Amino acid sequence: MPFIDLAAAVVFAITGALVASRKEMDFLGFLWLGAITGVGGGTVRDLLLGLPVFWVIDPTPIALCLIAAGVVHFTAHLIASRYRLLLWLDAIGMALVTVVGAAKATDAGAGALVAIVMGVVTASVGGIIRDLLGQEPSIILRREIYVTASAVGATLSVAAQSLVLSQPAAMVFGAVIAFTIRSLAISLDWALPVYRPRRGRDPDAL
Amino acid sequence: MPFIDLAAAVVFAITGALVASRKEMDFLGFLWLGAITGVGGGTVRDLLLGLPVFWVIDPTPIALCLIAAGVVHFTAHLIASRYRLLLWLDAIGMALVTVVGAAKATDAGAGALVAIVMGVVTASVGGIIRDLLGQEPSIILRREIYVTASAVGATLSVAAQSLVLSQPAAMVFGAVIAFTIRSLAISLDWALPVYRPRRGRDPDAL
Amino acid sequence: MPFIDLAAAVVFAITGALVASRKEMDFLGFLWLGAITGVGGGTVRDLLLGLPVFWVIDPTPIALCLIAAGVVHFTAHLIASRYRLLLWLDAIGMALVTVVGAAKATDAGAGALVAIVMGVVTASVGGIIRDLLGQEPSIILRREIYVTASAVGATLSVAAQSLVLSQPAAMVFGAVIAFTIRSLAISLDWALPVYRPRRGRDPDAL
Repeated sequence: MPFIDLAAAVVFAITGALVASRKEMDFLGFLWLGAITGVGGGTVRDLLLGLPVFWVIDPTPIALCLIAAGVVHFTAHLIASRYRLLLWLDAIGMALVTVVGAAKATDAGAGALVAIVMGVVTASVGGIIRDLLGQEPSIILRREIYVTASAVGATLSVAAQSLVLSQPAAMVFGAVIAFTIRSLAISLDWALPVYRPRRGRDPDAL
Repeated sequence: MPFIDLAAAVVFAITGALVASRKEMDFLGFLWLGAITGVGGGTVRDLLLGLPVFWVIDPTPIALCLIAAGVVHFTAHLIASRYRLLLWLDAIGMALVTVVGAAKATDAGAGALVAIVMGVVTASVGGIIRDLLGQEPSIILRREIYVTASAVGATLSVAAQSLVLSQPAAMVFGAVIAFTIRSLAISLDWALPVYRPRRGRDPDAL
Repeated sequence: MPFIDLAAAVVFAITGALVASRKEMDFLGFLWLGAITGVGGGTVRDLLLGLPVFWVIDPTPIALCLIAAGVVHFTAHLIASRYRLLLWLDAIGMALVTVVGAAKATDAGAGALVAIVMGVVTASVGGIIRDLLGQEPSIILRREIYVTASAVGATLSVAAQSLVLSQPAAMVFGAVIAFTIRSLAISLDWALPVYRPRRGRDPDAL
């Protein structure tokens, strides 16, 4: 499991570094954005749960994220042309950290709802910070069934564990569901219906 | 008091979900923005004070925020037409969490200045994150006497408690002041004078 | 050392208040942006390390940041015309908090990589939040060798301490290096080469 966990952080870090390349940042910008995208979600999860931050205890994840982001600085043109591959890797990473994040919350004594929230936080906060710092529309502004896939996977993983399955089996189940939903969204350009304000009515900015 | 506290979180969550509706986000976007607006300020306050995060211990606040945001997804056109009502509810919420936040800091052993800062943080950080993620001008960029009302209320509440009043009386006093200032600002379109750079001088971006 | 530490926070707070002045914020906006720029980096460092937040224990830093930001509200035109001076003070502040941040991490038992990261976090997170809230391009988007100077200084300070020097000597060494690199960048308009995507290839937004 630790290997898979690290792989997910590295994939996230690569997506962060690719945003840095689109924004033509310098080398340190790649490292910053790669590291915060790779470990940001898990960091916020640990802070919320009152646990020691995982990469402060063992710096392997942040070391690998920094290395990955640094490599992207010199090879971004190669990676960008493999954009579809990265999208799929990112979907795998999202599915994995969702169930790992939820399981970590459960192990820390959190109830079902908090565990689901922590799964979603782990999967999406890194990307949200990446998009804020890179001045791109955030994954919660775009409609591409990313957070939704994570939320459904986290919910089913937590429900399965509390109802019938062992934790490992429930995690595999939830991850497969999250990945399947995200895959279908990527393949079929799925999007949730969005709220559209009725015309002739323009609520003021709050 | 817990009831009032929850009501304030729900009102904040509704303001977050209304930003999601203006940005035409999908259902999960409503939940994300509603939840982070509802519990964001108190979360940052608890982290800064080194206390367990309130909704991780008892998930009632985040559950209610998620429900409220989900309901807004299907009813935003009704709520938007009641925009003035929401503005007033938000003013009440701001006044309440300001003094609750300051009191929580005092109870945790913080001094007067830190308690005041925590009151303002509780009242405004949720809205600041909401506006960042929704790509709207932040409440600290707009001039509508929101943070100011919270700061004055927090200051008077803390001062009253350390000088003369019992904590509950000081909290009521501070909340009434904060709400009154904010009410006048809403009713009379009050705004603080802003700093205007002198013409003929254009300081470079730092 | 505490005096120097406070001086750095105040200089950062002034840069935050100057952004508030450019954005024509009101008085409370100055205080908010000044305080978060002044103490933001150290706050995130302390949270990540699991230490009590420094200004919650002793509110002197946040008090001075608020005072400095308030003074800037009334004198921003004077300070803006001394923009070059401020740029140099900010470079000194960056160099100091970099090595202080790294040393605090080392003292808390962190390894070399985490200590370096904490030095950079202390020096740059305040400015990053300032630019996010002020809707300005972040220091990691601009190419002005700010984060780079901090990273090199932190690395050399940590390396020197683990190899040969006493902690105070290593801190002076790292701070001088960080300040020197930043000074040269300011004086000579240095910038790191940036990644430029090859033409004829337009990777989609991730």
